[in-house]
Amino acid sequence: MDAFQCIKTMRAVRHFADEPLPDEALDRILQAGRWSGSSKNSQPWRLIVVRDRLTLERLAGCGPYAGHLRGAALGIAIAVEPTPGAGEFDAGRLAQNLQLAAWNEGIGSCIAAMYEEDKAKSILGVPKEKVMWCVISFGYPAEGEPRRGALANAGRKKLDEIVRWEQW
Amino acid sequence: MDAFQCIKTMRAVRHFADEPLPDEALDRILQAGRWSGSSKNSQPWRLIVVRDRLTLERLAGCGPYAGHLRGAALGIAIAVEPTPGAGEFDAGRLAQNLQLAAWNEGIGSCIAAMYEEDKAKSILGVPKEKVMWCVISFGYPAEGEPRRGALANAGRKKLDEIVRWEQW
Repeated sequence: MDAFQCIKTMRAVRHFADEPLPDEALDRILQAGRWSGSSKNSQPWRLIVVRDRLTLERLAGCGPYAGHLRGAALGIAIAVEPTPGAGEFDAGRLAQNLQLAAWNEGIGSCIAAMYEEDKAKSILGVPKEKVMWCVISFGYPAEGEPRRGALANAGRKKLDEIVRWEQW
Repeated sequence: MDAFQCIKTMRAVRHFADEPLPDEALDRILQAGRWSGSSKNSQPWRLIVVRDRLTLERLAGCGPYAGHLRGAALGIAIAVEPTPGAGEFDAGRLAQNLQLAAWNEGIGSCIAAMYEEDKAKSILGVPKEKVMWCVISFGYPAEGEPRRGALANAGRKKLDEIVRWEQW
């Protein structure tokens, strides 16, 4: 799919079909993460792929909006070094690459913020000093969910509400 | 360009041709930003497009690695609400959309961190309480710079260095 179309049509998917992801698709998603840019090319991240149902269930309990992990084909946790300034920003760039590469394969995704971050890190054995702000659900969209090629209304602000020229 | 190819081939471009960007290309870049996902769809951002040479010159002085703004066709500043947790992460997702949409048009870009953030905000008239962590340079790549379709060696870690399965 054309990159602009992929960006424009991607929507959060929270309900997933009971269908595993092909290994080649997962590989491309992870490669997309690997190619992400980062401050001074520090690549301060580690990605943890979770397919174990019990682990997904436990992670789903680590935040009020994380329930979609329960039904996901898999989750990918993003753990980063606590770099002042750049860490969260770079994690966001990485997350976008993962999700776009998935959407390009017809795979939906949704970010689950880990409000109970310490608990989530302990579930995955992530060292305390790392930052693990989210786990992303991935899976083929269930019936009725947004899917590739169908442009849903996403309720975004108009361009002139968010863009200014030369000055604030 | 296919979304995965766009993600895989995108490289930071720091030297730009002396050539303006077509309005339609800029519009697609901004639309890509507009379609970005954000925590609870809060869309906590404002984008400031800067083409004025003097303003770009002044912004180039706001960080040790921001010099590339001087030669850019334009800069886009990202100002976000200081949301605890999500603000910087969402700004990173937005930045990735902007840069990928540009690369899809053959336009290069590079993130300039605003180490002197207060100074940068004052140059653009951005209210003190907003977070403006970066301005992104955009322009057609100068001779010798990475360009669309040419896969440069970007020195990324191998996949098995950054990916783990089920546990840290």
